[in-house]
Amino acid sequence: MSHRRLIVRPWSVAEVGLELDALAWSESVFALSNGHIGMRGNLEEGEPVGIPGTYLNGFYETHPLPYAESAYGYPEAGQSIVNVTDGKLIRLLVDDEPFDLRYGELLSHERELDLRAGVLRRSAHWLSPAGKGVRVRSTRLVSLVERAVAAIAYEVQPVGDAARIVVQSELVANEPIETDAGKDPRAAAALREPLEPEYQGQHELRAELVHRTRSSGLRMAAGMDHVLDGPKGTRTTVETEPDLARVTISTELAAGESLRLVKLIAYGWSSRRSRSALRDQVIGALAEARRTSFRGLCAAQRSYLDAFWELADVEIDGDEALQQAVRFALFQVLQACCRAEQRAIPAKGLTGSGYEGHTFWDMETYTLPALSYLLPGAARDALRWRHQTLGQARERARVLGLEGATFPWRTISGEECSGYWPASTAAFHINADIADAVRRYVAATDDREFERGPGIELLVETARLWRSLGHHDPTGAFRIDRVTGPDEYTALADNNVYTNLMAARNLTEAAEACTRHPDRARELGVDTEEVAAWRDAAAAIWIPSDPELDVTPQCDGFTRLREWDFENTPPDRYPLLLHYHNYLLYSSQVVKQADLVLALYLCGERFTPERKRADFDFYERITVRDSSLSAAIQAIVAAEVGHLELAEGLFAESALLDLEDLARNTEQGIHLAAAGGTWLAAVAGFGGLRDHGERLQFAPTLPSRLRRMAFGIAYRGRRLRVSFTHERAEYRLLEGEALEIVHHGEEVRIEAEEPLILPLPRRERLQAPPQPPGRELGRQHTRA
Amino acid sequence: MSHRRLIVRPWSVAEVGLELDALAWSESVFALSNGHIGMRGNLEEGEPVGIPGTYLNGFYETHPLPYAESAYGYPEAGQSIVNVTDGKLIRLLVDDEPFDLRYGELLSHERELDLRAGVLRRSAHWLSPAGKGVRVRSTRLVSLVERAVAAIAYEVQPVGDAARIVVQSELVANEPIETDAGKDPRAAAALREPLEPEYQGQHELRAELVHRTRSSGLRMAAGMDHVLDGPKGTRTTVETEPDLARVTISTELAAGESLRLVKLIAYGWSSRRSRSALRDQVIGALAEARRTSFRGLCAAQRSYLDAFWELADVEIDGDEALQQAVRFALFQVLQACCRAEQRAIPAKGLTGSGYEGHTFWDMETYTLPALSYLLPGAARDALRWRHQTLGQARERARVLGLEGATFPWRTISGEECSGYWPASTAAFHINADIADAVRRYVAATDDREFERGPGIELLVETARLWRSLGHHDPTGAFRIDRVTGPDEYTALADNNVYTNLMAARNLTEAAEACTRHPDRARELGVDTEEVAAWRDAAAAIWIPSDPELDVTPQCDGFTRLREWDFENTPPDRYPLLLHYHNYLLYSSQVVKQADLVLALYLCGERFTPERKRADFDFYERITVRDSSLSAAIQAIVAAEVGHLELAEGLFAESALLDLEDLARNTEQGIHLAAAGGTWLAAVAGFGGLRDHGERLQFAPTLPSRLRRMAFGIAYRGRRLRVSFTHERAEYRLLEGEALEIVHHGEEVRIEAEEPLILPLPRRERLQAPPQPPGRELGRQHTRA
Repeated sequence: MSHRRLIVRPWSVAEVGLELDALAWSESVFALSNGHIGMRGNLEEGEPVGIPGTYLNGFYETHPLPYAESAYGYPEAGQSIVNVTDGKLIRLLVDDEPFDLRYGELLSHERELDLRAGVLRRSAHWLSPAGKGVRVRSTRLVSLVERAVAAIAYEVQPVGDAARIVVQSELVANEPIETDAGKDPRAAAALREPLEPEYQGQHELRAELVHRTRSSGLRMAAGMDHVLDGPKGTRTTVETEPDLARVTISTELAAGESLRLVKLIAYGWSSRRSRSALRDQVIGALAEARRTSFRGLCAAQRSYLDAFWELADVEIDGDEALQQAVRFALFQVLQACCRAEQRAIPAKGLTGSGYEGHTFWDMETYTLPALSYLLPGAARDALRWRHQTLGQARERARVLGLEGATFPWRTISGEECSGYWPASTAAFHINADIADAVRRYVAATDDREFERGPGIELLVETARLWRSLGHHDPTGAFRIDRVTGPDEYTALADNNVYTNLMAARNLTEAAEACTRHPDRARELGVDTEEVAAWRDAAAAIWIPSDPELDVTPQCDGFTRLREWDFENTPPDRYPLLLHYHNYLLYSSQVVKQADLVLALYLCGERFTPERKRADFDFYERITVRDSSLSAAIQAIVAAEVGHLELAEGLFAESALLDLEDLARNTEQGIHLAAAGGTWLAAVAGFGGLRDHGERLQFAPTLPSRLRRMAFGIAYRGRRLRVSFTHERAEYRLLEGEALEIVHHGEEVRIEAEEPLILPLPRRERLQAPPQPPGRELGRQHTRA
Repeated sequence: MSHRRLIVRPWSVAEVGLELDALAWSESVFALSNGHIGMRGNLEEGEPVGIPGTYLNGFYETHPLPYAESAYGYPEAGQSIVNVTDGKLIRLLVDDEPFDLRYGELLSHERELDLRAGVLRRSAHWLSPAGKGVRVRSTRLVSLVERAVAAIAYEVQPVGDAARIVVQSELVANEPIETDAGKDPRAAAALREPLEPEYQGQHELRAELVHRTRSSGLRMAAGMDHVLDGPKGTRTTVETEPDLARVTISTELAAGESLRLVKLIAYGWSSRRSRSALRDQVIGALAEARRTSFRGLCAAQRSYLDAFWELADVEIDGDEALQQAVRFALFQVLQACCRAEQRAIPAKGLTGSGYEGHTFWDMETYTLPALSYLLPGAARDALRWRHQTLGQARERARVLGLEGATFPWRTISGEECSGYWPASTAAFHINADIADAVRRYVAATDDREFERGPGIELLVETARLWRSLGHHDPTGAFRIDRVTGPDEYTALADNNVYTNLMAARNLTEAAEACTRHPDRARELGVDTEEVAAWRDAAAAIWIPSDPELDVTPQCDGFTRLREWDFENTPPDRYPLLLHYHNYLLYSSQVVKQADLVLALYLCGERFTPERKRADFDFYERITVRDSSLSAAIQAIVAAEVGHLELAEGLFAESALLDLEDLARNTEQGIHLAAAGGTWLAAVAGFGGLRDHGERLQFAPTLPSRLRRMAFGIAYRGRRLRVSFTHERAEYRLLEGEALEIVHHGEEVRIEAEEPLILPLPRRERLQAPPQPPGRELGRQHTRA
């Protein structure tokens, strides 16, 4: 398995050379973020560029949502993440010639994302069109420790002759973005010049700009300061315009001499604070960063990451590319979330403007599991953000004529921003996904304060939604009709099994939380009748079946729908949604992404092993993986039912999605759900972790090609490391008290400071089901 | 039963006085049309005005259809009927004071639509603010005989003192339209200044303007000429501008003197003809109209209508308001269709710009039945228009991945113009509705030339659609999944009974037509295998059932959906679509309009009498009649199952819809489907006409309050008149050979020139089902 353009190293992702036509992709792969600030891996000199991008979590502009035929309850305003003032820009002139890699000769170029250092390093050796040689090195970081700060160490050195050097370090607002992504309905709506200038200031080598969005009225400040190390005679000027601040450094470097520049960048934004308060905030952050120094920022970054990797690292012996990919995935989860601090975590993190910077159910179902076990504070903060949007969710439920709260399918600030209700409003499962994330976080952390606070409120309001959304039919079954499950190639269906099972769990968990906290239940207006109605609905939940086929229909009637003609679907017509009408998709047995299979994983206790195997087999043959949310879940269930090589292939598809651009849209940003899913596929798939019972369950199992895997989790004050080979598993408590777990169905106890070593059962070899013709694994035309 | 504002007269609709706040409604009621030209009943003086409107059938402008989230196969361009150059305008000044009914004192005002003369008469007696009295009379017609011509006879006479009189007769293009109808998603998208001037000309008292639409590139010409009869000293001037032509007549009238003006108006449009050709065309039409004279136009109009009424009149003894209303409805059908001549018949006729002037399935299912029996040439022309759009329909099927042809849900020129596919593209039943209209027209006329020509092609291409749309499930049943039936409060449902039964008939009719015309079948590429596949699918069609409730579910699972909470739905929240989200509507047992009940009527042979009664009872309780397409169909089935008083109430709701503005949106144009439905409710409801078997069936039956009804139809070269009282029916052949029919289930023969008088069976009295709480008949808050 070879990466298309990247070097396989265990702890870094590196590109040697520079493919100009893949710039937009590499900018996403090399993006840096801390969950608050995001910077795409654009070249410092600004051009050539794929898609320029600098983002602040939660900073968006609104725009009208148009409808050819509108109707009651359609959202009227959309939200789009804004490409904010670009602080990455450092332009360079060599003897008046712009350092532009499209001209002259590029003798060498390398970029490396160092996953332990948390920096992006770059080095280039370039001959100008006039033949002047120059070497440029930069190291860029977005600080995981100083949340408002990014920094770039930039060094230029002539090779051969002396050279006149001009460096222009800039802040640029309202960068023009040219992209044809507008043809893909899932790409961002372009916003032209969203920022209105409010303030520009400068002092010595520092400058700052304050802007405000026209429609959403959010204010942001960007500042830069510089530490310069150049030869005598180096001159500097500073100038500002409404949309531009520029520090110009000019010098002449002899051969062997170099100019070193540290650019410190700070951002702040607020919907309330004044322009002067924001201005002062970034100036303060710059002062603090200057005191820390670039070296200090790098040291803090390293030590932050060392602590993270110590717990979180997933080791894979036997496939270096997978080893690299799983660490890259974990790094993406970390940098998307660690300093989000009660803001949403977008589907692309802060690596691109795909999906307009919106947050979906991916956050709870694909990203929060890893966070709950690796960075529980970040999981808590993400759920606190959901809780903060409860007001909007209650109002949305009211508009829909429902009780409780219904959370938006896609949003930045908490308002529903989807313009196609059958695949958004009707996808009510997001509410159960949120409730399940609350349950999981509380179970993993024992954070009773959170449970009594936002947790129980989220559980109660979503339970109320389900009670009003479903109803008892004449036979007493509790049905949930005309909703859309995870599979977006089926919509407005009756009794989607995933939705129904997750709703039942939501109702049960709310009832149990109210029983545990009767005072809080009273405050929330819950009485025993309401709790009884929840338990009753959960117990009576309707699960469709097809006794003739002996598989579980994804929803009522699913197994009677038209079969999709895979044989006559050419490979270039995937993803199907870009080539077939929704009618044809909805009326056929074709599955975009794991749906019933997701239920097999998350609600596995509701299925017998035989049924799991039959269901997995049935759905594997019709699931086209046109979503990046699919392969990881299929991998988990494939591993459970015993298709280990298939599980490994699905795991690889998830892990390599962005590194190999399998979906051909990584340019719009990395797929955070696939990154979280990759961790899940390792830990829940090969590790067999299940967390919906009384005790944590593990069932380690390894595909034949791999030699060993290991992973760590934090759990209720403990730190646990699990490693396993083909023969045995070792459970080791690195911290905390003894723990009872389930190992391959057997209750065992891990004592503190004493590794528990257990043999693995033999697995029978099974014939794995095929993927749909044309969508065999490894054909790499997935698209999310 | 009293009309809100109108006088009940048997052969006219008259308004005494003038309610300014109901102007837009009355302009629709008093609109004149011949199916080619449509003129709203705007006052000649232009102001006050509700909604100005002059339309030419098929003359539209295109505009982009926006989507918040687009997807494959969504139509990109919409079409909107254009308010063309207004030729109705005749402004009047009395001693320099504009004749404007908002000022001064209106001593009397009457407008009368004469249904036999086919003219709109108006008389006003007005005192100017300065106290000058004047009497104005006008008679307006849109000629049913000279298709391109309209005319207004206009007379002004001072009352009391002499007066200086100026009359300005105008053509005005690009009239500004101010309306807040834009808030209703079903109203027209306003087009601002759609017409680009191309030519202006004048000669003596004649003037003409040529314009072209900016985007659709259609060209139109409007011309006017004048015949003047005034006292000596009357002066005239003529002037033209790009968007205006004006003939000014100034005179002084002594008391008792009058100025009489005949304004002749002509229109033409084309997508191909040159500006000079169109200009000459309207000048020629004006010359011909001038030769005919206003009196001649009126005489031809009367004689055209006499012939129409002789065949078509529906007599109702016992309710004058219903008598008036059913004639008004027939007049609307006539004037919307008679000269449409292979253009579409819009849902509002040419009386308003509601639904953007689009044509829906209403045409085939609600309007063409009346035309097939009353104006068969117009029915043929409408179906020829459909046939002309077959190319677009084939292309649309291809885009959707289907075979054959799929006709647009809403269109002017044949392209799909709907921006919400679940209630349009998915409403595939329109294709079976078209096929059934072909079948009905051919059965009613025996027009074999049409059948061999466009007829069989329409049948074959729609049959091909159904064969590809549906599929055999493992049990062999032929299913049609995820489609939308007539009830728009349920969408994307499996096996809508109406759709499935109509599709089965479509498949069967296509097979039979191919058997009758094997040479044509060969030309269309139909072989015996294809015909066999159609027959097989039709025979295997799946019809859902609910054995527990013993009713027919409208679609799979319908009777298991949530019940709608009618008790807690306030009357002001109808129509529900304006107050509830589609999700809630789709997931509930609430029916917008007859759906299963339409199947009970059109496919009655598939239901036992007991099942019909049970089904009608079940659906009557949950059908809210939020569509103007509902009441008439409910009336038909109510009459059949024996709820005669209920049938009468439903018939009245359909008949009075526009006259009493029951839907509160007649201002956007009259509801042509309700007009056609009113005829159906009389003829198929009380007359019991069924036409889907070998022989015409009748089953006359009369509600107790009425004394007698009579109606006429043309059938295969015959003219038949049916009249009935409570005791007996009389069938009389006015023309043509003896005919075998079925009378209340019994085969009988009507001999030429010998009326057949047969007794009516006694009907048992049944307890009629109630309407949903809050939607009881007569509460008059329907909205379509």
